[in-house]
Amino acid sequence: MHGKAFLRVRGLILLVASTVLFLTACADKEEEGMARSPVRVPSLEDVRAVSPALERYTTQGLLDEVWKRPDLLPRDRSIVTLAALIARNQTVELPFHINLALDNGVKPGEISEIITHLAFYSGWANATSAVVVAKPIFEALGVRADTLPAAGGDLLPLDEEAEAQRASFVDESFGAVSSSLVEDTTRFLFRDLWLRPGLAPRDRSLVTVSALIANGQVEQVPFHLNRAMDNGLSRTEASEVLSHLAFYAGWPNVFSALPVVKEVFAKRSD
Amino acid sequence: MHGKAFLRVRGLILLVASTVLFLTACADKEEEGMARSPVRVPSLEDVRAVSPALERYTTQGLLDEVWKRPDLLPRDRSIVTLAALIARNQTVELPFHINLALDNGVKPGEISEIITHLAFYSGWANATSAVVVAKPIFEALGVRADTLPAAGGDLLPLDEEAEAQRASFVDESFGAVSSSLVEDTTRFLFRDLWLRPGLAPRDRSLVTVSALIANGQVEQVPFHLNRAMDNGLSRTEASEVLSHLAFYAGWPNVFSALPVVKEVFAKRSD
Amino acid sequence: MHGKAFLRVRGLILLVASTVLFLTACADKEEEGMARSPVRVPSLEDVRAVSPALERYTTQGLLDEVWKRPDLLPRDRSIVTLAALIARNQTVELPFHINLALDNGVKPGEISEIITHLAFYSGWANATSAVVVAKPIFEALGVRADTLPAAGGDLLPLDEEAEAQRASFVDESFGAVSSSLVEDTTRFLFRDLWLRPGLAPRDRSLVTVSALIANGQVEQVPFHLNRAMDNGLSRTEASEVLSHLAFYAGWPNVFSALPVVKEVFAKRSD
Repeated sequence: MHGKAFLRVRGLILLVASTVLFLTACADKEEEGMARSPVRVPSLEDVRAVSPALERYTTQGLLDEVWKRPDLLPRDRSIVTLAALIARNQTVELPFHINLALDNGVKPGEISEIITHLAFYSGWANATSAVVVAKPIFEALGVRADTLPAAGGDLLPLDEEAEAQRASFVDESFGAVSSSLVEDTTRFLFRDLWLRPGLAPRDRSLVTVSALIANGQVEQVPFHLNRAMDNGLSRTEASEVLSHLAFYAGWPNVFSALPVVKEVFAKRSD
Repeated sequence: MHGKAFLRVRGLILLVASTVLFLTACADKEEEGMARSPVRVPSLEDVRAVSPALERYTTQGLLDEVWKRPDLLPRDRSIVTLAALIARNQTVELPFHINLALDNGVKPGEISEIITHLAFYSGWANATSAVVVAKPIFEALGVRADTLPAAGGDLLPLDEEAEAQRASFVDESFGAVSSSLVEDTTRFLFRDLWLRPGLAPRDRSLVTVSALIANGQVEQVPFHLNRAMDNGLSRTEASEVLSHLAFYAGWPNVFSALPVVKEVFAKRSD
Repeated sequence: MHGKAFLRVRGLILLVASTVLFLTACADKEEEGMARSPVRVPSLEDVRAVSPALERYTTQGLLDEVWKRPDLLPRDRSIVTLAALIARNQTVELPFHINLALDNGVKPGEISEIITHLAFYSGWANATSAVVVAKPIFEALGVRADTLPAAGGDLLPLDEEAEAQRASFVDESFGAVSSSLVEDTTRFLFRDLWLRPGLAPRDRSLVTVSALIANGQVEQVPFHLNRAMDNGLSRTEASEVLSHLAFYAGWPNVFSALPVVKEVFAKRSD
């Protein structure tokens, strides 16, 4: 069933791609101004032409099995995968995974917020690269900017007490090292970005934790994994995020995160 | 004022780009041999089409505010940004930032040295990727190779005592692990690259520290941040390098560097 | 002699590239479906146009000297370089180095296995990016999929005792954190990937150690460096891997690995 869904997704992508989006490595003159993906998404045939084993692992191991495990929903797996790819600046599989995410129920507005969130959590150019890939997909789907989360507007309510604690801890620790960084963190991240309603706090945390692990940044994992679990990510889901990420961020990044995750789990009662 | 400068820069870039450099995703046959940027620089309109919020953060937060803070000059911000982008192999924003750096007073010869420096400090292919982006910009500006810093030639005077101390410390620590690495470090880096006159030692240090933080390589930050400050980088400037880098290398990389920077600051009297 | 080999390789690459592979940034309509490298390989002339010094370091330092040092064979240097480039997702130099690897005696089937191995050790999209570069090279050489290592088939004999020890250690340490990750590690990596006969265990270890150091993942270096040396990598070769990697992964990544390698060396009698 799910296997067929993947085949459908692949078929759809190949169809759309071959006609509109990615295969035209050569843009027509009148389309020159349009952002387009610089690399087309390699097909399974391309993979097989270089490594029959990699094709087998991809279809039989990753797509037909790991993605179907019940402990993490396909929508969550898509969020984790997008976070890993954007945070690692890996645009080659991004067109496929943006389309798959849409198929798995991640909304265009949520993809928009994931990209914006990762500008702050993985670097501005990572978001810019993702924009280049996402724009033609959004265009092909007829997603207009005015249907995406607005630039400004109402924010989610702030837990003033928790935020005051975080802010004063960071200020005491590092205010004398870089006061502008401490102020930007409060202003841009915790009193703005994190309160944007276009992505649920639990999903925003899932994006953050995935990006941190995918880039080997274990120092911030305790704070953000606790926040993710406070925001509703279950221990079972977090466990499965790790095994899912192993494929997309490589085994070493996930193994480096294991001791830290273990400690977070040990200190929590849920 | 500065905002207008940015608008002018953007306008200039868009004009040049649309006619000569990047928008021609499809090269004419006779131009095939020319290196060109594989991805055009996305415009603010492209960003808005995927995330109106990201466009707002880019214009109102990053360009109109962070870049204008007085504690770090625009020229230094450009050096920091180029270092982060090249060290992280993020070519998508590199054409924009090379042009902005030139506008902010970084000379072509200094950009040439920054790229060469980062071949050693972030990997050969990072420099190669930067070459692909820089070459058509240099060509469009009429920058000829014979006006760039020469391949060899006179070097800056060496502080023999400090270098002898560094070399003997490294040799005692790691000479038995890899004598060729220890010898290459002395010969290629500290008795050659660091003494090239095309980039001031203070700027070379700024490039190095920025690249280290941008790649999460905190182990080498104490040595190189101390060297940077010995070479004239002020504490105020270093603080602002951190908040600037947060945007270009992502918050986690900068937060991981904070404890190390704090310790360096604590041990210095300046 | 070796210098001439490099010139031959360069000449061959430039010839092939100019006619078939990379220089056609603009694909003919009928070729649109073909995977191709999105960036052509920059020539030494391109490098000189941006940095005469970088060209000098490339030819006189790296290619004519480091690559010719006798402590590590050219074939090993190619394996180390491919591992670093694929693990760091740096496709710009990959066409050159795949061709150089073939010239240095790395077989297409071994390159196929290296790419597959690094899907697991550096992330799926890294392998996908490498597929995009390798496919047209394999095609130009007439390498057919049925001559590459098969998707399944016979595996090398397993050291059941050592594997049981590894598996139970990992399960005791982290089974409660992510049982699916622990099971995937056993099933996909140690009872499958590592036993594939298309790449000798010593070379597979060399790929793994190189990728770990190239990405700053020092936590896993002790296990994998010991495994590499158990599989036949000499101490002299390991030392030279470090100085070779300094150029391709940047000095900081290698210096961060030095204390860990030192400790591994200290505990071994070979």
